[in-house]
Amino acid sequence: MQVITSKDNPNVKRISKLTRRDQAKKEGLIYLEGTRLCEEALSRGLTPVEVIVSESRTGWAASFTPGIEPLVLSENVFTKISQTVNPQGVAIVIKEPESSDDFPSKGDGKDVYVVLENTQDPGNLGTIIRMADAFGLTAVIVSPTTCDPYNDKVIRATMGSIWHIPVVRKTMDECFAFFNGNGIETVATHLKGNDLGSGDLKLPCAYFIGNEGDGLTDATTGKCGKLIRIPMKGRAESLNAAVAASVIGYELSKLI
Amino acid sequence: MQVITSKDNPNVKRISKLTRRDQAKKEGLIYLEGTRLCEEALSRGLTPVEVIVSESRTGWAASFTPGIEPLVLSENVFTKISQTVNPQGVAIVIKEPESSDDFPSKGDGKDVYVVLENTQDPGNLGTIIRMADAFGLTAVIVSPTTCDPYNDKVIRATMGSIWHIPVVRKTMDECFAFFNGNGIETVATHLKGNDLGSGDLKLPCAYFIGNEGDGLTDATTGKCGKLIRIPMKGRAESLNAAVAASVIGYELSKLI
Repeated sequence: MQVITSKDNPNVKRISKLTRRDQAKKEGLIYLEGTRLCEEALSRGLTPVEVIVSESRTGWAASFTPGIEPLVLSENVFTKISQTVNPQGVAIVIKEPESSDDFPSKGDGKDVYVVLENTQDPGNLGTIIRMADAFGLTAVIVSPTTCDPYNDKVIRATMGSIWHIPVVRKTMDECFAFFNGNGIETVATHLKGNDLGSGDLKLPCAYFIGNEGDGLTDATTGKCGKLIRIPMKGRAESLNAAVAASVIGYELSKLI
Repeated sequence: MQVITSKDNPNVKRISKLTRRDQAKKEGLIYLEGTRLCEEALSRGLTPVEVIVSESRTGWAASFTPGIEPLVLSENVFTKISQTVNPQGVAIVIKEPESSDDFPSKGDGKDVYVVLENTQDPGNLGTIIRMADAFGLTAVIVSPTTCDPYNDKVIRATMGSIWHIPVVRKTMDECFAFFNGNGIETVATHLKGNDLGSGDLKLPCAYFIGNEGDGLTDATTGKCGKLIRIPMKGRAESLNAAVAASVIGYELSKLI
């Protein structure tokens, strides 16, 4: 077993570059670090293009990525490239899942899409992906301005769901062309809408969630076929974007 | 108008100390900075014990805190004590709302309490407080180990709701003594529970949400009178704590 002890080793330099999300993204790759994050991706059957372990964690590589020659770093060098406060000595590099040209469909006429227009908070995006996976929605559609789904904070917040449910980047124009062309009801939240839970919604359905501060753009709201309102009997006038997406996802999942 | 230009001024030293949450907490105070945070608290009628502005923001103090002599700092000194990346030159110090010995009640027999046992993420706590305010719940009860509700991140995430809805710190023993003694149904989420939304719940009611990683303790679950399950038709096995709290809060608010 060859242990790399210098941070100037070309392999170390290459991996170190990939730990920066902007660099990995350019190459269509994702750097994952830590046992939970790595094992979640591996348990989904994703094959790493690279396995990196510290000297003391070669046993992990033998168990979780058999057949792949790991890059073994001294504890010191691993700590130097690590992006975490308490390095666990375990990292993998995987390819970004390909974003298909088509919209995913379950083919049972009960599709539910949650469409995010300009979601900015990684925690919110991750929480919505996790919720969509839990409630059995078909896919999470993200606008070009929504934050990167393979951002480390997003991946952590999904608790593995990022590898289960399709997350597809589409423009609002592409969304309306597909939904309108396929008889899929489009829904926006609006104060003038009917109450969520009043039996107004039917599947297949796509619902739109806007930016944390600004909500949905008027352009998108105007194109939606139906407006709904989340009943709020208290004083706050709005909900966190992930909470709003979740409450609607919960109601719609009753129809699946 | 006297402008303080030295960071060694005793008043600046005193305020600078209060910008650290642990120090402010010891004195039963809360330091709020930035126009949104300050104006939210002031619009709720809270009277600051101290107003701090930069030289260029004395107009803000005149408009929002008339009758209170502000501490005016040079831009430079304000920036030095500021806790934000882009200082807005506006801060206030308020007293921590007193945590009453009694449990709050609306007195209409329709109380709903969300009880948080060991919630650790400030974003989750803030999101739950905001949700509880929006859905008209009675109060948010936090265990002694739940994170500080007056932590800056929590306050920001509540979007002002922290000043609207009572947030009360109680032990689990105090909770069960009060709920059981007053005919308030106690509810825990559990895989073996009945489905949420099946008409099983009635008011008044208190529902318990556990720690992000570990869920509710067995001790607390065991003391609850009813178990419910959030139906999940997908693959993820659990929801983010704030999402779970919100979906249950949404269902219960239908009964309010």
